[in-house]
Amino acid sequence: MTNRPLILLTNDDGFFSKGLNSLIEVVSEFGDLIIVAPDKHMSGMSHAITLEKKIYINKLSDHPELKKYSCSGTPVDCVKLALDKLSYKRPDFCFSGINHGSNTSINTIYSGTVAAALEAYINKVPSIAFSLLDYSLDADFDASKIICRNIINKFLSVKYDKSISLNVNIPNIKIDDIKGIKLCRQANSGWKEDFEENIDDNGKKYFIMKGIFFNNDKSNDTDEFAIANNFVSVVPLKTDFTDSSNYKSLQEIFDEEL
Amino acid sequence: MTNRPLILLTNDDGFFSKGLNSLIEVVSEFGDLIIVAPDKHMSGMSHAITLEKKIYINKLSDHPELKKYSCSGTPVDCVKLALDKLSYKRPDFCFSGINHGSNTSINTIYSGTVAAALEAYINKVPSIAFSLLDYSLDADFDASKIICRNIINKFLSVKYDKSISLNVNIPNIKIDDIKGIKLCRQANSGWKEDFEENIDDNGKKYFIMKGIFFNNDKSNDTDEFAIANNFVSVVPLKTDFTDSSNYKSLQEIFDEEL
Repeated sequence: MTNRPLILLTNDDGFFSKGLNSLIEVVSEFGDLIIVAPDKHMSGMSHAITLEKKIYINKLSDHPELKKYSCSGTPVDCVKLALDKLSYKRPDFCFSGINHGSNTSINTIYSGTVAAALEAYINKVPSIAFSLLDYSLDADFDASKIICRNIINKFLSVKYDKSISLNVNIPNIKIDDIKGIKLCRQANSGWKEDFEENIDDNGKKYFIMKGIFFNNDKSNDTDEFAIANNFVSVVPLKTDFTDSSNYKSLQEIFDEEL
Repeated sequence: MTNRPLILLTNDDGFFSKGLNSLIEVVSEFGDLIIVAPDKHMSGMSHAITLEKKIYINKLSDHPELKKYSCSGTPVDCVKLALDKLSYKRPDFCFSGINHGSNTSINTIYSGTVAAALEAYINKVPSIAFSLLDYSLDADFDASKIICRNIINKFLSVKYDKSISLNVNIPNIKIDDIKGIKLCRQANSGWKEDFEENIDDNGKKYFIMKGIFFNNDKSNDTDEFAIANNFVSVVPLKTDFTDSSNYKSLQEIFDEEL
């Protein structure tokens, strides 16, 4: 409870992930921290919320400059509980990650890390989701820490006239090989599903989700292009899903007085 | 396996919900059906996917014009499995719902019903999410069935030059009181969280998510406005989260060669 900004941290890989702890190292320079993160792996949880079920919180540290809570809920539950119940005041910023693995392009919609940042943004708390393109538990976050520090410095230096949320992806290369930081749009990519079929111990068939990523969006202003060219991608996000692209012609088809 | 269109149906309230069965009644007029829906309540699951865990499928009907499967996974898992493993050919359309409860405005992002429709859209299968503004298990879908039939008729009559996904919300009133159908944009609304705190049988504190919906977006072109004025709202959706509104100024702040 100092005069420094209050910064909410969360992620979707869980409280004890290396990525979150790398982010804590960086962000503690910038303000007091409240960390509310899932008590287990919650990748792929998107914007899921826990309805009509109990959510438990475990307080791990009550230090005034570093409060830590693990949460049995989803990443979005973590943000909602932080804002409503756990934080002594509205956080000034929310940072989510550093995710172990890509959240570029269509992965934006599946990611719990991005969803947590978006939930803060919905609540007018400016936010950033950080991801490193390495899924391994023991990923090397040394370059990521330098990049996060750089981007947070810029992010905090600006006065915005409205809330903002950024989706940052960092290529999995040494810091000297990173060519720069580039504002991008989300590439229009997808996954070709290829579920694995197996038989469990009771003789019952089950499926495990697998797939092959593809990107047919080859223009040079996308997050995929930035990453492929050794740039950090920064995509500004919003939560309005309205597709305005052929609004008029759809109006002619669907508008009707009954 | 007739010459009629193949239509994939799903929802987030679960296989045995009244809303899904109401939709089946309507849609069976329009084509052969493959139904893949969660085996339990999956409201609020958004675009969550099941990673590194087993997903089970239960075949309930193998009739050539009406195949039925329940699925242990999320609504999006249902669509992915339908497309990759369960459907003998690519479905021509996907309809999701009829949801018990509102999926207007910010609820779009939390909804499993909408996410399932969006997952079809991502896979180039044109889709509609239908929701009735009544959360009760025994909601009256009589007016909804007439509205769904009307909208599906329009939807199937048009040739689109790209995939499309619609988010349809139906006010909870008699059909004679519904004034019409209106293409809208997603209202910029939110929830003010108000978690309930309780103590479980082991003396441990837990939280149950509650909140109060608010809508500060008062213009007359939104889904909230349509519903409040007894219109059915139709919002065309996309999955590109990029916020282009202050792209140039953000570029000046964040773009950097390293």
